[in-house]
Order: sequence, then C-alpha cells, then structure tokens
Amino acid sequence: MTDFATDRRSILAGAAASAVLLTPGAALAQRGDMDAIRKAVAAGHDATVKRIQDWIKHPTIAAEGLNVDTGAEYMVGLAKDAGFQKARIVKTDGVPGVFATLDAGAKRWIGIYFMYDVKQFDSAEWSSPPLEARIVDRPEGKAIMGRGAVNQKGPEAAFLGALHAIRAAGRKLPVNIALVCEGEEEIASPHFHQVIADPEVLAAMKKCEGVIIPSASQGPNGNVTLTLGAKGAVELQLISSGEKWGRGPKKDIHSSNMARVDSPAWRLVQALDTLIAKDGHTPAVEGWFEHVQPLSARQKALIAEGARQSNEADLKRLMGVERWIGDEDFQTSLERLASQPTINIQGLVSGYTGPGGKTVLPGRAEAKIDLRLVPDMTKDEAVTKLKAHLVKAGFPDIEVNVSGGYGPTETPEESALVRAEKAVLERAGITYSLVPRSAGSWPGVVFTGPPLKLPAAQFGIGHGGGAHAPDEYFVIESSNPKVAGLDDATMAYVDFLYEMAAAK
Amino acid sequence: MTDFATDRRSILAGAAASAVLLTPGAALAQRGDMDAIRKAVAAGHDATVKRIQDWIKHPTIAAEGLNVDTGAEYMVGLAKDAGFQKARIVKTDGVPGVFATLDAGAKRWIGIYFMYDVKQFDSAEWSSPPLEARIVDRPEGKAIMGRGAVNQKGPEAAFLGALHAIRAAGRKLPVNIALVCEGEEEIASPHFHQVIADPEVLAAMKKCEGVIIPSASQGPNGNVTLTLGAKGAVELQLISSGEKWGRGPKKDIHSSNMARVDSPAWRLVQALDTLIAKDGHTPAVEGWFEHVQPLSARQKALIAEGARQSNEADLKRLMGVERWIGDEDFQTSLERLASQPTINIQGLVSGYTGPGGKTVLPGRAEAKIDLRLVPDMTKDEAVTKLKAHLVKAGFPDIEVNVSGGYGPTETPEESALVRAEKAVLERAGITYSLVPRSAGSWPGVVFTGPPLKLPAAQFGIGHGGGAHAPDEYFVIESSNPKVAGLDDATMAYVDFLYEMAAAK
Repeated sequence: MTDFATDRRSILAGAAASAVLLTPGAALAQRGDMDAIRKAVAAGHDATVKRIQDWIKHPTIAAEGLNVDTGAEYMVGLAKDAGFQKARIVKTDGVPGVFATLDAGAKRWIGIYFMYDVKQFDSAEWSSPPLEARIVDRPEGKAIMGRGAVNQKGPEAAFLGALHAIRAAGRKLPVNIALVCEGEEEIASPHFHQVIADPEVLAAMKKCEGVIIPSASQGPNGNVTLTLGAKGAVELQLISSGEKWGRGPKKDIHSSNMARVDSPAWRLVQALDTLIAKDGHTPAVEGWFEHVQPLSARQKALIAEGARQSNEADLKRLMGVERWIGDEDFQTSLERLASQPTINIQGLVSGYTGPGGKTVLPGRAEAKIDLRLVPDMTKDEAVTKLKAHLVKAGFPDIEVNVSGGYGPTETPEESALVRAEKAVLERAGITYSLVPRSAGSWPGVVFTGPPLKLPAAQFGIGHGGGAHAPDEYFVIESSNPKVAGLDDATMAYVDFLYEMAAAK
Repeated sequence: MTDFATDRRSILAGAAASAVLLTPGAALAQRGDMDAIRKAVAAGHDATVKRIQDWIKHPTIAAEGLNVDTGAEYMVGLAKDAGFQKARIVKTDGVPGVFATLDAGAKRWIGIYFMYDVKQFDSAEWSSPPLEARIVDRPEGKAIMGRGAVNQKGPEAAFLGALHAIRAAGRKLPVNIALVCEGEEEIASPHFHQVIADPEVLAAMKKCEGVIIPSASQGPNGNVTLTLGAKGAVELQLISSGEKWGRGPKKDIHSSNMARVDSPAWRLVQALDTLIAKDGHTPAVEGWFEHVQPLSARQKALIAEGARQSNEADLKRLMGVERWIGDEDFQTSLERLASQPTINIQGLVSGYTGPGGKTVLPGRAEAKIDLRLVPDMTKDEAVTKLKAHLVKAGFPDIEVNVSGGYGPTETPEESALVRAEKAVLERAGITYSLVPRSAGSWPGVVFTGPPLKLPAAQFGIGHGGGAHAPDEYFVIESSNPKVAGLDDATMAYVDFLYEMAAAK
C-alpha cells in the first residue's frame, strides 16, 4: 500500500506547473504570500479532511426530509468558521437556504454557490458506510468515501480551506465573498430563487463579478472540463386519476369493468402520446421550439473538438446503447445532446406493478417526466406551454405536478470569470476542454438569468466519482501526478481568488 | 355471542323448502335414502369443517411458486378419501393437475372441476391469520376465515362432503364422477388444456353429461346467481426494451441522453396508443370484432331483469365510479359488461416508480394487460391478431408475453345441467337470477369449447365473501334462514347428483 502521505504537497509544488501556480498573474499576491498560504494549506490539511468527514456525517436529503432544519444551521457554522462575518439562514417555502458575507474591504465581490444537501443512498450498495466518510485507498489515491464526498462537500470544503489558509497565513483576502447556499439542489432547486430574491442577498449578489460552485472537474487523466453552460431541467409528474377526471374509478377496481368504466391509465397513454412526434423523441408541444437558439459556429467547433477527444465505442458500451437516434454519427449525437430540448419519461407507474398480472382497472396512472431546456427557453414558458397543450389536446384533467426545476444557463467564454479559470489552469499546466453546454443541469440560471445576469460556472481541480451512485469518493491525495489532491485543489481556489481580484 | 351450533341442520330441514329438498324429483332416491344421507351429512359436519381448515393450511399459490408440488399430492389424498377409486397427478408444463374417477357402476358420468390453488394474500391486511382457517362469528353466521375459504375450498369440500355422506349412509352414488383439478386457476389456467388433453382424462370427460365447479352462489339475501357463461380472459404483458429493440439503452441511463438515445418508454406509449380508439375504450386492433356475437333478445331480457333487481347508486358508490362510459344508463352499462370485448391496462411500470422523480431514461417499459373475450372469440385468435397488429403498426419489437388465459364460455339455458340446477333450487324454494354472461372469467371453455362441447357452470348454494381480498370467509352455520350453511350446501350437491342421474 503506497503511503500517499509522503507525496503530499509534491504534486504541483515540485513541478514547473506549480511554480507557475505560485505566481498569480494578478501581481497582487507576492511570491512570499503564496508560499505562506501554501504552508497554511498544508498545515490545515488534516482539519480540512476532518471538516469534510464531519459534514458527510450530517447529511441533508430534501427528498426524504432528512436534516432539513439542522443542515442549514450546520452550513452557517461552516461559514462562520471560515471567516464569514455574517452568516444566516434564509427561509424559503421548502428547505432553507444560507447567506453569508466575508467583507475583506477589497475592491471586488465574488459570489460562491454551495449546495449543502446530498443525494439519497442505499447503504446496502456501498463497500464503505456512506455516512462514515472513511479514508480509503483507491487506484486514484487516498480518498474520502461517503455520500456527498465529491457532490459537493469535498470541493466546497476545499474552497473553505482556501479561506482558512489565507487567514492562517495572516494575509488579507484579495476579494470580498458573498456565499449563497441551498439544501434542495438534488430535488432540482424548487425554492432557490426565493433565497436569491431576499433583498439583502440580491443586493450583495448584484455587486459580484461572477459566481462559481466549487467542483472537482479533473478527469482520471487530469484534464479539466470547463463547461460554459448547462441545459435547464424541469421535473414534473403527469397524473391521470378518476378522482380528478370525474370519470373512471377513484381506486383500483376489477378489470372486467373496462367494458363500462373509463380508464385513467388509457387516458394517460393517450395524453402522453400527444407530447411527442411520431419519431419518438421530438417534442410535439405547440411552440416548444419558439425560443430555441441554434448552436453557434464556435459551439459546434468546440463539440467537434470534444468528439475527436472521446471514444464513441467506449461510450456506447458504457451506456449500453448500440445506436444514436436515427443512426446519426457521434458528432451529431453530441450536438443533439447540447442543443435539443427534450421531454423524457423517467418512469411510469399505475395499478399493479409486481410480477405477472393482476385483474385490476387502476384508478390512477402517473408518468414521471423531465424536461431539458436550452437557451432561450425558460422554466415558466415550458410549464405554461405544456399545460396549455394538454388543455388544447382535450386533457385538462391531467395534473401537471412540477416538483422542481430551472431554465438553462450560459456564461460567455470571454467573461472575466472564464478567463480567470483558464488563467489558473494554464499557469498550473493543466489541460482543459471547453464544453459549450452540459446536458446535465445545475441551477446556474439563478445567477446568469435576470435580474442578476452574472457569469456563473462550476470550477475547481481535483477528482472524485460516484456522484448519485454508490461508493462516492473525493481524492485527497492523488496517485496520479497530473491530478490534484486536496491541497492542490485548495491552492487553485486561492489562485482563482487572486486572479479574479486582478481580472481586467 | 349466538351459539350457532344449536341452529345446525335447522335451516332448510325445518322449512317447507327443505322438505322439498328432501324429495328429489328424480325418484331414484327414496325419502328414506335422503333422510339417511342427511343424517350422515350432519354426522360428518365436523369432519368436513376440519377438511376445509386443513386444506386452507396447505395453500398452493402458482404466482409465488408456493406448494406447487405438494398441492397436487394433497388433492389426490382428498379425492381418495372421498371414495374416488383412481386418483393421479397429471403433469403439465406448469403446476400439475389431478384426475380422479369414482365409478359407481351408474349409467351416467358427471364431470367435476376443482381448482386447488388460491390467490396471493398479504397477512397484514387480515383480521385473522389467512392460513389458520379459524372459525369466526360474523353477521352472516359462523364462518371459516382463511385464504381459499370460499374461492374455492369451502364449496369444493362441501361437494366432497356429499360423496362422504352418501357412502357413510350406505347408499350407492347415482352417477359416476370424473374429477379434474388444476393448480393454476388464479394465474388464468395457462396449462389446464394440457390436463384435459391427457388421453385418459379426455376419454373420461367425453362420457360426461356436463361439468360443474362447486361454488357458494348465494348472495347475502339468499338469492342464487346462475351464470350461463363467462367472458374469456387473457393475461399478457407488453414489453418494450432496448435489449429487444436494438435501439435505446439496455439499462436505465441518465435522462439527459433523451436528446440522442431512443426511449423504450416512449415507444411503449406509442404502441399502446394504437390499441385503443380515440374514445379510450374500444379496441382498435384490426379484426377484433370479427367474431363478436351480439347479445340475443333473451340475453338482453335477462340483463334488463338484472338491472331492475340491482341498485345502481349503491353499486357506483361501492365501485367509486360516478359515470359509466359515455354517461350511458345502467342497463346499457350491464349490456356492455356482458357483450363488449376489452383491452385493459392493469398496470404500467417503467424506470423510476418511487416518490417524486429521478433523472433516468429507462431501458425497459411494461404494460400489464388483460383482454376480455366474448363468444365467438378465442384466445389464440385474440393473441394472433394483437401480435399482427403490433407488427403492422410498426412495433414488431414489442414483446407480447402471454402469461395465461382462455376464451369465453357459454352453456345453453335448456341444457340438462342448467335444468338440473334450476330443479334443485326450485325444490329448495331458493330464488335465483339467470345471468347470461359473467364479466369475470373462469376456464369453462375447456369444457364448453371443442373438443368436449359439454355444458359447464358454477353451481352450489351457501355463501361466502372476500375472494381475492382480505378476510375471505365461507359460512358454515348461517344466521339467515334464507342462506344455506355447510350442511345444506352439501345436501344440495347430493340432490344435484340424483337430479342429474334422472335428467331427461
């Protein structure tokens, strides 16, 4: 077993790359500053690891109503420990948010977005108890294993570690920080806009140059994915019921009655069938494409570059997919992934769902749906059009239960934020790929959309895996010299803050 | 608590009705015969109750693979105990059947059909353990409560009790009996035709005048429902999968891929939508109505009579239904119930089925379907047409997994069997309603269809409830003088056998 501890601090510090990392272009931080901060990061390593572990032991899971009250209090404590002078809970109609400010008397403000909630888990599927946050040895190096390790407590704690280190080194923070946190990211942020709408939060965010969510963006080979945007996502359930319809049964009845009683299950099938074109994938809701923007030449070029760097056959094998839609080629599939709005069936549930059959006519049928939205669609527009479509198609009784979601987000490549990210990576000698739009979603639109219209992106180096899956992990000491461990990931945030302070 | 035991033997024996019951019209049994047999029935009462209880304690549940080997052996034992000289297991591709003969040297043979399996149960829903077959006091009288009590072990044991009593009374059975039993009735008898196709079984059945399945057909008010037929039922699952289709994912993948990967769930929705007309209930499969016979004037008259005797408002309340299809009147709804073939969705299941949503694109989607068939449709015809329809509609990859079923059954009102049933009831002073066709199903077509073409019906007096539901019960001592308890139900089978022996 490798003693990864002996490698600590060596990964970037010994290389030309990290020599560069020690010299932020901003010239605000002197070499002496950086040396002192790096020492403080190393000295604080164990405390940061413990901070991640303790946080993992206090999970907030909105879908299950787990620690939805105490999670925000815990987050307030983390912020105060990291030097935020003000930190308070922001009430919403759901799980509360947290807002904190660290006013260093600097010229500029930077926004930081945290999610403090985590995804559900099934302990039986894990090789290490998901709430124990044990240190494990993996091929990638020494890692913390637990729910939330990489999504998102590890990277977020690395960011907090940067603030601890700057303070411990006796240095002044080069920017002021406004921190906004939510506890419902994993249920598609249904109330995060209420956090931002808080007058004090809104006023603080308006002063910011841009917003990042700390993220371990390095792949196993060290390459960083810089995403310039993400599709929006709306989660909803379409429900057909005898109760609401006034036809059919209110509960399951004997199936022989299909001869004389209307069927909510057939009604759901008929309503669903109006939502999608004959091709089985193109949304058929009236006006769905009204505000859809085509990909730009630059976006297409970036996708083409991404296609060249990926192995299509490996990806298909991993996904269990033999063909893309219409037997299209890889690049077209990637363009679709970035550019096409979708209406997906996540699940169907009605009546009897066990093995074989059972002679019932169900009183209720539900389709679990997600919509993926692209610029310039909005969540409200999509939901309104979907509801109008169902009414016009003759299904006004089908309930549309929107359980979460937000619109697409986009941040210009030439924004100060993205330029700072690139500068940090380039100085560190870390390669990166620009992805114009992630098919997965995050609520960046709360920042990039009106009224704030700020640049916002995921950012950070380091590596982890298993988000939304068993054995989630976050590497703290990397076995690959191209991949950052916890201390280098922390230093990258230090550099980023100095870079933003000096950004033109 | 009433001591129902004191009422035993008094219900029909003391009334004019039962005086008639003691005098079978067949004149084969003298008054002395009947008196002796009735005494033997009373003497055997406790043994018959214990026989029902012991049988309930040995459940066979085909859907769960429970006692699928020992159930047939148990059935063989019951037959031998009742005097069948030959009794053997008949192997099938599924749960085995049982065949037994009791050759009394009589002129005529009667066929008896038993199911020895029972429906699944959830013990938590019962007020008395479903396999303990406890004696409970109910408003209807003293009853055995347990899974299978009325469906069908109680009535079947009452029939066996009749054979025990005739032998105990030293009388010769007036008819020979061929007994065929299956252990898959509750999964729609997928292999019962294999039992009948056994050469020895087929030869014996060909000699029979008709077939009954013992049944507790009295309602709470004592009225008997004599059904002259039943719809056929076919259980099947329609399955759309990436595996079979060669498109879409083989397992659930991230829902963002809806932009570039085909969806088996949407495909199932599209396939389903072709099966039903815009009205949401009329089958749209080509040729579905080709062999559908309209109701006769007699059938319509019987249905009109049934409508007059029922309370529509009570029924709707009980079913949780406010409106029949198309806001039709009650009689029309009953005509539909008897005459319309249906394609019902019993259940839908795909992808994520828990609370809220989950971002997956499912690799598989299944619709659980039952078809109800009317004369002269057949199971093979329906399945063949359904499969041809799916191919022609462009969905050859949708799997049609037929898990059980059979065609409709019909027995002429003027058959010797039905005339004997009526004679027994009329002599006993028991009112009855003729129902031309039950919307529920039983595999009578195995007897009424080719090659046997025998009259076949459910028959018996007595009362029970809770079939396929919790707290299933069978009344052994009735609190209502119009409703038979176990001994009178047993005597009705005695009378029926004598009546069949003398039938013109």
